[in-house]
Amino acid sequence: MKAVVLERKGEISLRDIDVEDVLSPDDVRIKPVAVGICGSDVHYYREGNIGDFVVRDPMILGHEASGVVTEVGSRVRHLKVGDRVCMEPGIPNFKSTETLEGMYNLDPEVVFWATPPVHGCLRESVVHPGSLTFKLPDNVTFHEGALVEPVAIGMHSANKAQISSGDTALVMGAGTIGIVTALAAGSSGCSKVFIADIKKEKLDFVRRHYQGKITPIDLKSQSIRDVMKGEDVDAVDILFEASGSARAYEGMTEYLKPGGTVVLIGMPSGPVPIDVVALQAKEISIRTIFRYVNIYPRVINLISSGKLDVKPLVTKTYSSRQGVEAFEYAATLPDSEIKIMIDVDF
Amino acid sequence: MKAVVLERKGEISLRDIDVEDVLSPDDVRIKPVAVGICGSDVHYYREGNIGDFVVRDPMILGHEASGVVTEVGSRVRHLKVGDRVCMEPGIPNFKSTETLEGMYNLDPEVVFWATPPVHGCLRESVVHPGSLTFKLPDNVTFHEGALVEPVAIGMHSANKAQISSGDTALVMGAGTIGIVTALAAGSSGCSKVFIADIKKEKLDFVRRHYQGKITPIDLKSQSIRDVMKGEDVDAVDILFEASGSARAYEGMTEYLKPGGTVVLIGMPSGPVPIDVVALQAKEISIRTIFRYVNIYPRVINLISSGKLDVKPLVTKTYSSRQGVEAFEYAATLPDSEIKIMIDVDF
Amino acid sequence: MKAVVLERKGEISLRDIDVEDVLSPDDVRIKPVAVGICGSDVHYYREGNIGDFVVRDPMILGHEASGVVTEVGSRVRHLKVGDRVCMEPGIPNFKSTETLEGMYNLDPEVVFWATPPVHGCLRESVVHPGSLTFKLPDNVTFHEGALVEPVAIGMHSANKAQISSGDTALVMGAGTIGIVTALAAGSSGCSKVFIADIKKEKLDFVRRHYQGKITPIDLKSQSIRDVMKGEDVDAVDILFEASGSARAYEGMTEYLKPGGTVVLIGMPSGPVPIDVVALQAKEISIRTIFRYVNIYPRVINLISSGKLDVKPLVTKTYSSRQGVEAFEYAATLPDSEIKIMIDVDF
Amino acid sequence: MKAVVLERKGEISLRDIDVEDVLSPDDVRIKPVAVGICGSDVHYYREGNIGDFVVRDPMILGHEASGVVTEVGSRVRHLKVGDRVCMEPGIPNFKSTETLEGMYNLDPEVVFWATPPVHGCLRESVVHPGSLTFKLPDNVTFHEGALVEPVAIGMHSANKAQISSGDTALVMGAGTIGIVTALAAGSSGCSKVFIADIKKEKLDFVRRHYQGKITPIDLKSQSIRDVMKGEDVDAVDILFEASGSARAYEGMTEYLKPGGTVVLIGMPSGPVPIDVVALQAKEISIRTIFRYVNIYPRVINLISSGKLDVKPLVTKTYSSRQGVEAFEYAATLPDSEIKIMIDVDF
Repeated sequence: MKAVVLERKGEISLRDIDVEDVLSPDDVRIKPVAVGICGSDVHYYREGNIGDFVVRDPMILGHEASGVVTEVGSRVRHLKVGDRVCMEPGIPNFKSTETLEGMYNLDPEVVFWATPPVHGCLRESVVHPGSLTFKLPDNVTFHEGALVEPVAIGMHSANKAQISSGDTALVMGAGTIGIVTALAAGSSGCSKVFIADIKKEKLDFVRRHYQGKITPIDLKSQSIRDVMKGEDVDAVDILFEASGSARAYEGMTEYLKPGGTVVLIGMPSGPVPIDVVALQAKEISIRTIFRYVNIYPRVINLISSGKLDVKPLVTKTYSSRQGVEAFEYAATLPDSEIKIMIDVDF
Repeated sequence: MKAVVLERKGEISLRDIDVEDVLSPDDVRIKPVAVGICGSDVHYYREGNIGDFVVRDPMILGHEASGVVTEVGSRVRHLKVGDRVCMEPGIPNFKSTETLEGMYNLDPEVVFWATPPVHGCLRESVVHPGSLTFKLPDNVTFHEGALVEPVAIGMHSANKAQISSGDTALVMGAGTIGIVTALAAGSSGCSKVFIADIKKEKLDFVRRHYQGKITPIDLKSQSIRDVMKGEDVDAVDILFEASGSARAYEGMTEYLKPGGTVVLIGMPSGPVPIDVVALQAKEISIRTIFRYVNIYPRVINLISSGKLDVKPLVTKTYSSRQGVEAFEYAATLPDSEIKIMIDVDF
Repeated sequence: MKAVVLERKGEISLRDIDVEDVLSPDDVRIKPVAVGICGSDVHYYREGNIGDFVVRDPMILGHEASGVVTEVGSRVRHLKVGDRVCMEPGIPNFKSTETLEGMYNLDPEVVFWATPPVHGCLRESVVHPGSLTFKLPDNVTFHEGALVEPVAIGMHSANKAQISSGDTALVMGAGTIGIVTALAAGSSGCSKVFIADIKKEKLDFVRRHYQGKITPIDLKSQSIRDVMKGEDVDAVDILFEASGSARAYEGMTEYLKPGGTVVLIGMPSGPVPIDVVALQAKEISIRTIFRYVNIYPRVINLISSGKLDVKPLVTKTYSSRQGVEAFEYAATLPDSEIKIMIDVDF
Repeated sequence: MKAVVLERKGEISLRDIDVEDVLSPDDVRIKPVAVGICGSDVHYYREGNIGDFVVRDPMILGHEASGVVTEVGSRVRHLKVGDRVCMEPGIPNFKSTETLEGMYNLDPEVVFWATPPVHGCLRESVVHPGSLTFKLPDNVTFHEGALVEPVAIGMHSANKAQISSGDTALVMGAGTIGIVTALAAGSSGCSKVFIADIKKEKLDFVRRHYQGKITPIDLKSQSIRDVMKGEDVDAVDILFEASGSARAYEGMTEYLKPGGTVVLIGMPSGPVPIDVVALQAKEISIRTIFRYVNIYPRVINLISSGKLDVKPLVTKTYSSRQGVEAFEYAATLPDSEIKIMIDVDF
């Protein structure tokens, strides 16, 4: 079948590739329709690895995907041929302790699309467990379906924060994950959501598309405290750290209420110094997240209901026949772009 | 001072009345501006009692109120003369065990406006603890401020349900409390909210003002299951019982997902038969609520942010000089009315 | 293989029976060593059904079991031949929504030992998923291993109650489940546990074996309130309803603190009238339980650590060669007996 | 009245001192009977300050106290003259937002005994809010009553960890707070509790008095992993950091299960480097604590019930007439001592 293949560090090709593709009774076969490009795809392309995950053999890229069901295993009941779906890209051992305890994302045996040596889904056809394949309502587009994956990270973060209705939140970092986290916080009951970054284009994007929903803070010219005060907010209930920058940790407790919560989403490149005594003085809790769990149906429902407006996130679209160009563009992405989407039409 | 006084069962008058009104250092003095009429006010008027609370002496009515601060006690720091505010009508013993544990609403010593023998606030001036008096943002009207009280019940119910973003909810009963609960559930992350009642006017009101936000179910002509199915919902995560009718308990577990939650808000007139085994088969949890606690600032923030649209709830307004007529009308309220608001201008 | 078989209502035999017994890669084969008799086994024997579960074909009895591993599937890593183990008797669909959400006990597809038409484990050999088979520490006996099943119900109930250390608890009903719930509550941080029943022998058993740990209340001669007062307890934080009697629901809120919790374990034979307003006045929460989930390792650890003393519960032991007599005795069990254990030695 | 007074850094005297001591209707007057010496007392004695809290005027020491009620304010109902009690030393503003939300320990206005400029209670008589004064059961001694304060820190930490019955725990640091935390974890449902330190005398104390309840780990000669393995524990559910040492943070996630919890109790002297990505890979949560809240009655009940054995903690006793010597000894405390108790008998 045709696929977009990362041959090795720095080299992507569009070509035919043989992949084993047996449909078990619990599986469905899907024809991918839209696949978003993720930072991790680009990282493998540019660096050839992420930590211990090293690209040693040609690997199909792509894990943010929607598609159409083309074949249904005998034990799958909730799907039929022709259904429009999106797919959760991490497959756990369904019988592991972590899975049984409801945290299959933490199962050490998880197999994840486009994480070496596992192929991704930017190809003509893919087999996937039915229980990780979710039907899209008619009013949810394929692009939105493919966006469910990154949005799931923001929504999992919001759920981890155990938001109470009327909470206020500050998101550090206005990259794609920061923005989807801010959107998720807003759709989860936060009355006010701030997002802070040093990149003007990211804040402009927020201002343009989410006016009145998310308040941007330009760290180059504004102080967090001043912007918050201007909105009658002395301190927030929740701080989402989505920048991965050690600097975002400096003084973070001063923006939080007593009993507040920090959710760590960004992945700093090394150890980060933390002021434990400052956390203790307010009994701040810290939550961390790893991907997401049991969240796809929730994201889909919120998109369908109109409470989660993700359409603006797709800022550029390529055909899969231009797959190589798409990744080349993504590798040097200007700040004004958010999500590059690939329409699969080999 | 002038006040609307329930003289005894069935008799209300607008007259001068002497009330003790000493301002302690922790108090503020407020000139009420808007006061909503609550079902309990009407109940005291018509019946002369609610349970063991019996009207034995003339009592000023009203407890859903907003106003303007006219005097500030020496230890109150967050308010100043001229501030527009709304007031939480229940005053606990601030040193009780329940208060220290964060549930002052359950303190047996709570003193509540317009609950015999305690006067309400439908009068020219009232003294109140500063810590139960909340500043209104400029974009929140006095009418909205007075609505915070009933909305607080819905919001407390939503918080008790521990909604996860993307949950679905069914509200039984489309009276004022049912509607505010549905609104609160929607602003707390529910992706889909149904409300069921037998009164067509109530459902029409919902359809007219909250189209696309709350899905009405007419129990006289529709089945809950069918309407839910029509929206791709097999079962809901949360059922809010806001009707107080024993019939609403019949088969309620069949609408709920495994692990779902019921919140009991309506107050049935006697014991209600419950199918324990059906609850167990799905490990349903039941939460109950009593008024609200620590919720006013949250409601105010959500109204201010536009996430909670309560303005349509005021369907008729009276001047306090027409206070007697207002209560007479409220005592025989047509189903098409939701909230009667009194503008205080003695 | 040899087995204890319920042929039909009222008839049990000890005989050879053919059962399919294929070992998949995720399974282990176990030789059962100890099997407790449960009320449900007896109920099938005496009545031929429990609700919709009807004995239509011969069925091997027994689901409370420990044993020794005799064969290990290729993908099972935590067990080896010769390991002493106990087994969780309910097997879910590992890919269901409920399982993925961490509540596999609520999966409608659960297959449960000795629940028609599924065979139990009172036989020479049984194949079981490795992930539901748990190694016993050296200091935990086979009898204790077989007791993990009923104790798991009590422990799941205690966990559902979300006990805070120093809570007080009242258990209604001193049957086997009531007693294991009281033990579980005690080992979960409760400072004081009361158990109330009308059966003197049950309370005597508690007094004899759990003096100072559980305070018995004889409902025929004592009032709950008086016994609680005698221990300086005005009201408890948690009430475990383990009697299944509608009478236990009468006035239950009066024993509970504001914000308290009720856990419903007993299964009443029909609807039970509940005083909703009394629950609301204290914002009581009700939790319900269905079997247990993710709890076996916890019970095993607590038994091993000495914090959960379950040995006294086995009041009589039979050989499996006396299996028929064992069930006959269990069918007319005197109140002085708690758990009848069968040593499997066909 | 007589008191033990810290005159200035390095100088303590036993002398008469005038203190304002007005009994309001919500207060009780207490004659202290036993007062423990805390590390903070010693710190003020040796250094003259703790952070921004500087000893500028003579200050009575002592805040871990029990005593006898000698006078009762008119609104206090739960106490009478002659009652044996212990006292919670931090007095919040009872009307603050934090107090109303159930976290009065985080109220910035808290006034705390023996924290400059507030006097402590090592004196003949002290006035205190009735709601922070707790009756001791007959079987709880004055020494145990005075120990409730430090134990409360351990118990608050255990409650913050939201222990599920059967969890395992590792405590870093075997100082007084480490030991009381380990005890609290054990009495809160942990099946296995490890405590690690480099000080042999501390571990010997644990071994001597809490054999079979707490497993000591000597970091000078043993690896945490090896000791855990020896007890069949691969990883713990909860890690309590009670050492305040930055080294304890190194590799802490490797001892924790996926989904595990860290509670930060120790107060490091500066920022601590934290490996965020390692925390994320297991979705570890971090909780922090500041003193305690709503925990005294729980600690008292657990001591009374025998589930919390704190008596061994008092390793040396002084008369208040030897108050100066007691603090001199405490200032250079050998590792073999845990808690120095002062019997108040001026």
